[in-house]
Amino acid sequence: MSQPTRQPGQHMAAEIAEQPDVFAALLESRPVIAAAAHRIARIKPRFVLLAARGSSDHAALYAKYLIEVLLKLPTGLVSPSTVTLYGAQPDLTDVLLLSVSQSGRSPDLVEFTATARKQQAMTVAVTNDPNSPLNDAADMSVDLLAGEEKSVAATKTYGASLLALYLLIDGIRGGNGQHAEPIPHLARATLDSGDVSDVAETFRELDQVVTTGRGFSSATAAEAALKLAETSYLAARAYSGADLLHGPVAAIDDGTAVLALCSEGKGGQAMRDVLEAVHRRGATICAIGSASQDTQATHRIGVPICMEELAPVLEVLPVQRLALELALARGEDPDHPRGLRKITRTR
Amino acid sequence: MSQPTRQPGQHMAAEIAEQPDVFAALLESRPVIAAAAHRIARIKPRFVLLAARGSSDHAALYAKYLIEVLLKLPTGLVSPSTVTLYGAQPDLTDVLLLSVSQSGRSPDLVEFTATARKQQAMTVAVTNDPNSPLNDAADMSVDLLAGEEKSVAATKTYGASLLALYLLIDGIRGGNGQHAEPIPHLARATLDSGDVSDVAETFRELDQVVTTGRGFSSATAAEAALKLAETSYLAARAYSGADLLHGPVAAIDDGTAVLALCSEGKGGQAMRDVLEAVHRRGATICAIGSASQDTQATHRIGVPICMEELAPVLEVLPVQRLALELALARGEDPDHPRGLRKITRTR
Repeated sequence: MSQPTRQPGQHMAAEIAEQPDVFAALLESRPVIAAAAHRIARIKPRFVLLAARGSSDHAALYAKYLIEVLLKLPTGLVSPSTVTLYGAQPDLTDVLLLSVSQSGRSPDLVEFTATARKQQAMTVAVTNDPNSPLNDAADMSVDLLAGEEKSVAATKTYGASLLALYLLIDGIRGGNGQHAEPIPHLARATLDSGDVSDVAETFRELDQVVTTGRGFSSATAAEAALKLAETSYLAARAYSGADLLHGPVAAIDDGTAVLALCSEGKGGQAMRDVLEAVHRRGATICAIGSASQDTQATHRIGVPICMEELAPVLEVLPVQRLALELALARGEDPDHPRGLRKITRTR
Repeated sequence: MSQPTRQPGQHMAAEIAEQPDVFAALLESRPVIAAAAHRIARIKPRFVLLAARGSSDHAALYAKYLIEVLLKLPTGLVSPSTVTLYGAQPDLTDVLLLSVSQSGRSPDLVEFTATARKQQAMTVAVTNDPNSPLNDAADMSVDLLAGEEKSVAATKTYGASLLALYLLIDGIRGGNGQHAEPIPHLARATLDSGDVSDVAETFRELDQVVTTGRGFSSATAAEAALKLAETSYLAARAYSGADLLHGPVAAIDDGTAVLALCSEGKGGQAMRDVLEAVHRRGATICAIGSASQDTQATHRIGVPICMEELAPVLEVLPVQRLALELALARGEDPDHPRGLRKITRTR
């Protein structure tokens, strides 16, 4: 009996499409997330650290903005090697550590989390596998509830990480996640509209891609560059809009495609100067987001309006579809990028 | 009377060569830096934040590793837009903020620093201009003593930032910077040897460049990518060695040049897996650093051995010379990259 033939990118396509349901499941689990949030709020952390690798690192960057803006707490992204390579034993009293990993199996994150717990941090594992070693290492866990992810390129676990972190952080400030209630519906609307094939066509022949966003959307820019690099093997580089103007803009010319995240709100407004600078340099601009229509972009992919701090959950959906279509147009299989495995074991 | 003709890259070449003297001047100023360090040590900060943009952001990344490993304090890199765009007013009691900027004039850093000071942080400006607005905004200052930098591409102010931050952080733990005493001499030896023209030749026809390092040398990888992007307009991407294996390695093939930082110590040892992975994918590897001889690289640029935590001060020197030679070989003027000014005004 022969195996049914698997189409290239079939898992990635299915997993992108599952996200509205994954978001709905996370919203259903709000009482569980709220219980974790209340436990964290009671100990009143004064400083927050985030530990993550790969796509999860971009979810962590999103959480960093949320924590700084919504919780008003200073926040840092962890360099795990300070502990795993250099044996640092930092004093982490009053520190909350959020460790984000879809598999929960990256050895450096497990080791960093175990060390942080021993050093007095309150540690939380945010994973898609409640039985992972990372969950064992941490004081408590948040489950992404995304179901098994078969494609090596993470999509639904990325979207789930963003929403789970939002709900946890909103819960810490005493919220009940009500602003996120429209997200499953808006995610479905985003996936049902917004044709990305024009953009995929434009990007098809290019291999100089710069992705950029500001504020909460910086995370989406970082994730977009990684997704394009790992599925279509593009030399995609991500910069916050501000950092782009501090040097890398010099490398942009009429052979560069710029993927710009432009959502309604202060981050999107601050992108105007950035878009003007790259437009002046002749770049082909593709703007994605709820404020993309106001830009001088060549291509615009709209996304429904939502609260600015939730925009990354929606705006990554067309980014994922773009990565998928582009990989297929280039004859690649984004479910199995060359040289990658689902769990990366770094120390 | 005609102006004397300026050669392309003349300022950058002169400023790279000045660094041994700049390092010596900084070592002379140790008593001043130690006074600032003692004042910081007395208030016993519990968390450290670093604010910077561009090249200075890479000096801040280096300082982050130093603080985590040597001072054992949790540390974060600031996203200034949380304050400048979103108006966050974080509680920064017990926080030390180091704001690094060669010009001291980036409006977002000045605003973030002023806000942090109002919010109870102890604030330190690390700049090359004691009269800058950033110095005015901060509680105290560390002067880079590098003299005017004429090239838009920062070189001597970058090296000076690394060494000044090392001396400050060593001072906070009660050190007197003695491990850095050989640095001016070793920097001169580094600049006198290590021909980079072979590597410049290899990179000349390529525009896919990935830079990578681990631990303290992650900062050098980031600075190398920026320097190549802003002077030779290469699409150079920087990754920590661990992050590279979590996805972007898929985009590496036999058309990619990998610039790898390999210094003696734990960071360099941890690069072995990374080099093996990119070698297997057919990349042309250029290894720079005191442990570069042990690698399977096509090109190796040696650097004298020093303490691992000081290696970034030396290993960036051949990186800067490579950026200069490559830009000149490509007919560019690295003193005046297209579209850049010396002071970037972002908010």
